[in-house]
Amino acid sequence: MTQRVYNFAPGPAVLPEPALEEAQRNLMALPGVGMSVLEISHRSAAFSEIIQGAERNLRTLLQIPEDYAVLFLQGGAKLQFGMVPMNFLRNTGARASYIVSGTWSKQAAAEAAGQGQVHVAWDGKATNYDRVPADDQLNIAPDSIYVYLCSNETIAGVQFPREPETNGIPLVCDASSELLSRPVDIRRYGILFACAQKNLGPAGVTVVIIRKDFLDRCPNDLPMMLNYRQLAEHNSLLNTPPVFAVYMVKLVTDWVLREFGDLQKLKEFNEKKAALLYDAIASCGGFYTVHAAPGSRSAMNIAFRLPNAETEKKFLAESRKVGLYNLEGHRSVGGCRASIYNAMPWEGVVALRDFMLQFYQANRDQVG
Amino acid sequence: MTQRVYNFAPGPAVLPEPALEEAQRNLMALPGVGMSVLEISHRSAAFSEIIQGAERNLRTLLQIPEDYAVLFLQGGAKLQFGMVPMNFLRNTGARASYIVSGTWSKQAAAEAAGQGQVHVAWDGKATNYDRVPADDQLNIAPDSIYVYLCSNETIAGVQFPREPETNGIPLVCDASSELLSRPVDIRRYGILFACAQKNLGPAGVTVVIIRKDFLDRCPNDLPMMLNYRQLAEHNSLLNTPPVFAVYMVKLVTDWVLREFGDLQKLKEFNEKKAALLYDAIASCGGFYTVHAAPGSRSAMNIAFRLPNAETEKKFLAESRKVGLYNLEGHRSVGGCRASIYNAMPWEGVVALRDFMLQFYQANRDQVG
Repeated sequence: MTQRVYNFAPGPAVLPEPALEEAQRNLMALPGVGMSVLEISHRSAAFSEIIQGAERNLRTLLQIPEDYAVLFLQGGAKLQFGMVPMNFLRNTGARASYIVSGTWSKQAAAEAAGQGQVHVAWDGKATNYDRVPADDQLNIAPDSIYVYLCSNETIAGVQFPREPETNGIPLVCDASSELLSRPVDIRRYGILFACAQKNLGPAGVTVVIIRKDFLDRCPNDLPMMLNYRQLAEHNSLLNTPPVFAVYMVKLVTDWVLREFGDLQKLKEFNEKKAALLYDAIASCGGFYTVHAAPGSRSAMNIAFRLPNAETEKKFLAESRKVGLYNLEGHRSVGGCRASIYNAMPWEGVVALRDFMLQFYQANRDQVG
Repeated sequence: MTQRVYNFAPGPAVLPEPALEEAQRNLMALPGVGMSVLEISHRSAAFSEIIQGAERNLRTLLQIPEDYAVLFLQGGAKLQFGMVPMNFLRNTGARASYIVSGTWSKQAAAEAAGQGQVHVAWDGKATNYDRVPADDQLNIAPDSIYVYLCSNETIAGVQFPREPETNGIPLVCDASSELLSRPVDIRRYGILFACAQKNLGPAGVTVVIIRKDFLDRCPNDLPMMLNYRQLAEHNSLLNTPPVFAVYMVKLVTDWVLREFGDLQKLKEFNEKKAALLYDAIASCGGFYTVHAAPGSRSAMNIAFRLPNAETEKKFLAESRKVGLYNLEGHRSVGGCRASIYNAMPWEGVVALRDFMLQFYQANRDQVG
């Protein structure tokens, strides 16, 4: 077997080994089916079981109420940036409030502004997007049909510790890099979406959880693949879904259920992993600095800097040599970032922590 | 190893075994990378090689000129039904001519009519969509900015033997179920698209070949994921592409190059396979009837009927018993259909032919 490294990439990201092993074992032919999952019809009994199983697992883990539909779509979170306002803002006169707490919510707000009326309820620019707003900082337009947020900004490592207060206005949330990492109160949301390639599976499928009364508002003049109502009416089978990606979501959620049972346990595990790194950073006397402010720090993505660019380069080169990969920060901001999603094992985080402490000891004197 | 059956499904469809075997071998970790292809970053050197390799293979096989972009998108052919008119018809005053030769071109025309002006150049309804039009039957609006066709209607098994004459107007073509099965004169096309799950790979990626001057016409008020220009400017990496599906396209096109060298050879192979079935059908004195008229018969999908529903049911049940799967016709039309894409081996078609002849001998007297 080829040696595997610890992969701290922000997505596509590390997947649970048991899910990969099962996919590998069955790749030439699913047991009892005689065809690869890459070859089965999306209308076959085998695939019905897979997609229904994936939905059932998500409903169990996230405690999704019956009056919410679960869709498996294509196009990534970025297509959702456009689909949400196309369905609910365009030609309606309605407006929505957007909370801009980083790169992705900013891009979503810009996409929405191209389709309809957007009110910015808060923008974290003044402190370089290092935190989420307190409730009393939010300026939500009271007639908003939804309040938009990105619950975890992957690039800056800024995460909402809990949902913002919206006085009953439903949230629309890009939860791409945190969905399934902790319990969530679905009832607060009109729409909750996440591309798979962080905690759910491989790139190529996006999970959309949508309150059914939102479906009634979808307009009739949209191409059908962009209309949530039509997609929901066909249970995500309006055309051929990304069969293999949905299969992997099934295997990954099987693993979560088997390994953790519920999301509260998984949350505790994830917080313990994150604390290991944040505590190590705090113990190094300012050698490492976390971008996110306390209270807004992500349990999924820890974005940090070293004293200077040269030391960062050395850190990245040496970490790679010991099998710790993809610790580069996003190309738009530089620095370093460790993404430690559900599937990152405890041992991987310990290995990174140990490396960080050791790198600090070896380099603390060389830098000003 | 689990026994594999012969899979005559219309898509998702059979894939080349060597491509599946390579994917299986490397599923835990790509050689030299230490991560599964399901886990690698879409911005990594490993993936750059994969997506560039897939594009290079397609350019070689299809002889795609430099002034055409090759995109790897999500959403299937059905999203293209909407994206094409959103980009080129909506709010322009321009119109396009649509050739309606079956289910998929009909649906594409309806989607386009929701966005802009559509002129139907021909509709095969009168003969129940059993043929493609002769050039002199086409009533193309001379001011059309494109002429739309579906080059192979998968459900009815109706295929254009060559491009229709359009007096220099560029074609926009849904080639989902035939792209890569024979040479094509790309210069005739403005846009040529195909979902992967027939001849190119698994479900989850759609290949779009687009003449670069079309990109200049894309409007600025579309969400970026629906704007061909922005997708092309980012080489399909505007967001995370469906990494694994693109990887499979690379492996499948590697196989085509290795096994056949060029599409002329592959075309001859496919025509030989199709002739085996059409000839067998012709030899059974009307027991089997082909839906498509001579001259319009597909080399990819052979849709046929048996004398009555009861015999069809028996045919489907018995074929399954000898390892010939998914011979059901599309649920909208019933009957039987054999899809024999590139990856269907010669032995599979021979096995089906033999079964059909034997079933005819055993049942010719029981039916009226």
